[in-house]
Amino acid sequence: KNKGRLLIKCPDQPGIVSAMSLFLKQNGANIIESNQFTTDHEGGTFFIRMEFECPDLQEKGQRLENQFREIAESFSMDWEIHFLHDVKKTAIFVSKELHCLRELLLEWQSGDLMTDVVVVISNHEECRGIVESFNIPFYYIPANKDIRKEVEAKQLQLLEDYEVDLIVLARYMQILTPEFVAAHKAQIINIHHSFLPAFIGANPHKRAFERGVKLIGATAHYVTNDLDEGPIIEQDIIRVNHRDNVEDLKKKGRSVERSVLARGVKWALEDRIIVYENKTIVL
Amino acid sequence: KNKGRLLIKCPDQPGIVSAMSLFLKQNGANIIESNQFTTDHEGGTFFIRMEFECPDLQEKGQRLENQFREIAESFSMDWEIHFLHDVKKTAIFVSKELHCLRELLLEWQSGDLMTDVVVVISNHEECRGIVESFNIPFYYIPANKDIRKEVEAKQLQLLEDYEVDLIVLARYMQILTPEFVAAHKAQIINIHHSFLPAFIGANPHKRAFERGVKLIGATAHYVTNDLDEGPIIEQDIIRVNHRDNVEDLKKKGRSVERSVLARGVKWALEDRIIVYENKTIVL
Amino acid sequence: KNKGRLLIKCPDQPGIVSAMSLFLKQNGANIIESNQFTTDHEGGTFFIRMEFECPDLQEKGQRLENQFREIAESFSMDWEIHFLHDVKKTAIFVSKELHCLRELLLEWQSGDLMTDVVVVISNHEECRGIVESFNIPFYYIPANKDIRKEVEAKQLQLLEDYEVDLIVLARYMQILTPEFVAAHKAQIINIHHSFLPAFIGANPHKRAFERGVKLIGATAHYVTNDLDEGPIIEQDIIRVNHRDNVEDLKKKGRSVERSVLARGVKWALEDRIIVYENKTIVL
Amino acid sequence: KNKGRLLIKCPDQPGIVSAMSLFLKQNGANIIESNQFTTDHEGGTFFIRMEFECPDLQEKGQRLENQFREIAESFSMDWEIHFLHDVKKTAIFVSKELHCLRELLLEWQSGDLMTDVVVVISNHEECRGIVESFNIPFYYIPANKDIRKEVEAKQLQLLEDYEVDLIVLARYMQILTPEFVAAHKAQIINIHHSFLPAFIGANPHKRAFERGVKLIGATAHYVTNDLDEGPIIEQDIIRVNHRDNVEDLKKKGRSVERSVLARGVKWALEDRIIVYENKTIVL
Repeated sequence: KNKGRLLIKCPDQPGIVSAMSLFLKQNGANIIESNQFTTDHEGGTFFIRMEFECPDLQEKGQRLENQFREIAESFSMDWEIHFLHDVKKTAIFVSKELHCLRELLLEWQSGDLMTDVVVVISNHEECRGIVESFNIPFYYIPANKDIRKEVEAKQLQLLEDYEVDLIVLARYMQILTPEFVAAHKAQIINIHHSFLPAFIGANPHKRAFERGVKLIGATAHYVTNDLDEGPIIEQDIIRVNHRDNVEDLKKKGRSVERSVLARGVKWALEDRIIVYENKTIVL
Repeated sequence: KNKGRLLIKCPDQPGIVSAMSLFLKQNGANIIESNQFTTDHEGGTFFIRMEFECPDLQEKGQRLENQFREIAESFSMDWEIHFLHDVKKTAIFVSKELHCLRELLLEWQSGDLMTDVVVVISNHEECRGIVESFNIPFYYIPANKDIRKEVEAKQLQLLEDYEVDLIVLARYMQILTPEFVAAHKAQIINIHHSFLPAFIGANPHKRAFERGVKLIGATAHYVTNDLDEGPIIEQDIIRVNHRDNVEDLKKKGRSVERSVLARGVKWALEDRIIVYENKTIVL
Repeated sequence: KNKGRLLIKCPDQPGIVSAMSLFLKQNGANIIESNQFTTDHEGGTFFIRMEFECPDLQEKGQRLENQFREIAESFSMDWEIHFLHDVKKTAIFVSKELHCLRELLLEWQSGDLMTDVVVVISNHEECRGIVESFNIPFYYIPANKDIRKEVEAKQLQLLEDYEVDLIVLARYMQILTPEFVAAHKAQIINIHHSFLPAFIGANPHKRAFERGVKLIGATAHYVTNDLDEGPIIEQDIIRVNHRDNVEDLKKKGRSVERSVLARGVKWALEDRIIVYENKTIVL
Repeated sequence: KNKGRLLIKCPDQPGIVSAMSLFLKQNGANIIESNQFTTDHEGGTFFIRMEFECPDLQEKGQRLENQFREIAESFSMDWEIHFLHDVKKTAIFVSKELHCLRELLLEWQSGDLMTDVVVVISNHEECRGIVESFNIPFYYIPANKDIRKEVEAKQLQLLEDYEVDLIVLARYMQILTPEFVAAHKAQIINIHHSFLPAFIGANPHKRAFERGVKLIGATAHYVTNDLDEGPIIEQDIIRVNHRDNVEDLKKKGRSVERSVLARGVKWALEDRIIVYENKTIVL
């Protein structure tokens, strides 16, 4: 597990990769994956994700981080360093529809999601059985518009208690207030059951049926204060036809929702996503 | 070529298939493909497409049509009968982007589109060479907002002269007036370079880029008086990512536009499409 | 639940659909879905699947079946009639890899597989927990080449006790003897973890890695006496690249295996599959 | 056009990226795309493709190349450097089926293939019209088993005359001798009309039909002396069903063949492909 990841965003200029790779080499680290992107070759913004392996990283991590600060400053970098021995802690929010929760738990159990699922929170009791069968703490917090403030207070307390790094809204059907979104450091990933920006908002499958589309989709995105307007992480679609009624669209949609969300969460856990101008760069 | 097709829409009730198949049998015809659909099993609307083979159909066609009228009336059918010896006549409208035109001409040349392409009309000269190399009459009719009326008058005259059954807008970038849409019996199929209802209207690729979507699409639809709101025939998408700028989206979009349009046109020529409540039933 | 399905195979001739639809009409049944196929329009074989709705079908079913025999004989039909009130009974065989089993159980729990899963049999204990959490009887029958005879005797007894109609091999890693395949009336569906006929036999992912393919697949097929040579029901693929080692191929393969198997089983339960010349016709 | 590309294969060790990026920086070049891959993090082989921009590259190119030699030797690199001002020269071989040729010419005309198509060679006359309409020299060289030697001598002469860098077999239905494959420095890309390793050899669509597969594919691969056994560059599939006869499979196959070949050729022209152990690494 002697692995780490550097994520960088800075103004493009010659010498960035050179400085970073020299730094890693001097610290005995070997680059095992490196992906970069520049918005524009003249005056653009530069992004890079470097994954490296380094003996005794657990001991040397803090020192590496301190030393890198100097390079970061000289290139005016926004930067993050992640060590794989610091396993991320994830909370899952869910309501009555359980297919996304199930997919995440199965992927996690198969070792495909490198995280600790530390807590599941729901405004319904439906998922208690499945969650507890995975030995994950489950909290039932009934919710509605009128008690939103208290509900979010309880949720924020749990996020703090469990030191959550990532919140996944796995078909959680309550709107989060801007205060909630702002209050906690955790990133929040939502799955919307349409191909955004088509069918923003409620009842996308009903509206897709009425419009007679031939494909329906799903979108994993970061949550911001604008409903369904956050940076898109991943999307996919499934083919439908005139035989499918609204109920059929929901069924078909489930399979694409769960795989899109699972991919988005996986990339977030692998520190592959940089947000830039309300879009995502997935490296 | 002794083949025909029956397309039916009527209130659902027992006995429709029985009556139709008995009628065909009594006329010596053999059903070679049959697809049906009912909106609702109680009080719904019934749709069927039957393709049949019948010796000496060219001689017997008119009689068949007359005889079927009685059945049609007893079931209150909206109906059409098509004979494959009456080859449909198609007109293609195009502007500067030629990928859809090229795809249609290549598919047609390979024998995959059963039609006569009788005329190509453009508001630009770019495609003259390719069109004339296929020995298809080409008409250059410059167009803009201010002379729309005269332009459409010329176009309508050509449609009449060439007895056009189907108009394909293969990236024709002029808006058609309601008068034009109403004036001619021909069906009009358009290709829109987005996954409708996302990015209705102009510059869909620019807006897709700005929103940061991970898929772009194309939509073949019938033209009605509401821009981009007509019944959707076919849609498809292609994956994009943060590396793709607007120009890249246009390039990637072309491959999906041309295949979506080609499929939609093919189904129309095969009499597979029934319009119902601003949607298509593709049988 | 007043629904039934007719599945027919017979020499093509005019009048089949007519006779069938007249028969259904006279018995007060309404055709709700009908799909047909002919191998060749001259001297070919004709196939049809008709789904119908008929009031009081539970009472009238036997009479319908008897009456249809006459029509069946006059057209030399191979035929089956199924009533939806006779729910099919399914047995699942599994070894150590549980992704296909999980998918089937989740789909079944969501109401997407119309069957009773009456028993799960495994040569390992891994799945006991999950199976019993669904309240399905679980039997652990250790197996190896040397005791194949006794093992299959036990399995056949269970199939008989539970009156099994359909056996699903959900990554069951033991070979079934021809005697077993012949002994029981149940259809047997297997999932093979390659895109047949590529990589028939053992270790397909290892061989796919060595060949450097860019796609890996999965195949659901009926089991016959020739290993991996039975009629193919459904196939699908997933994209891989040079970064994927054998372990990665296995992981990626799982998602396509489970969805391909689920689709194949669903079609079998909906009586959509007719086997003909070692191929399947899916209507 | 001040762009260049470095392609490297060498034993993995720390410091490679650092040395390369320092070298480019010192020469005033800016890395604009960089993709790397290591077969194994201990004792593995390292691959990298770096695309860079450098003012006055046309003048400085030769010097850069000479200077890089030192670095290359110190890391025991297999390496190539390409300058975008040296446009690659491509020859296309074709027989009677023209869909792949057409796709390549259209993509090339749209500016999506950065090459000069310097010559088209065919053993049939079918494509003369289309080739000459693009103002490309066309050579008709009839071929069969008995005159293979003379035919290949003529072809080799043309390849030399036109200084060809890349040969594309766009459904060229003659087998090339090992002597031909060895004789010329050009890389040879072939399109096989099946999903290799399924249906190696002749008549893949007929055999796919007989096996009853539900997907058919296409494979772009480098040509080696073993028929259809060369390194696979790209593959894709298209869905088929029981209604498709051999002729239908051929038609459906065409659309996937042409897009798979076009992608493979594009990657080769962009210097993205490194061959390693009879596989391709596409960076």
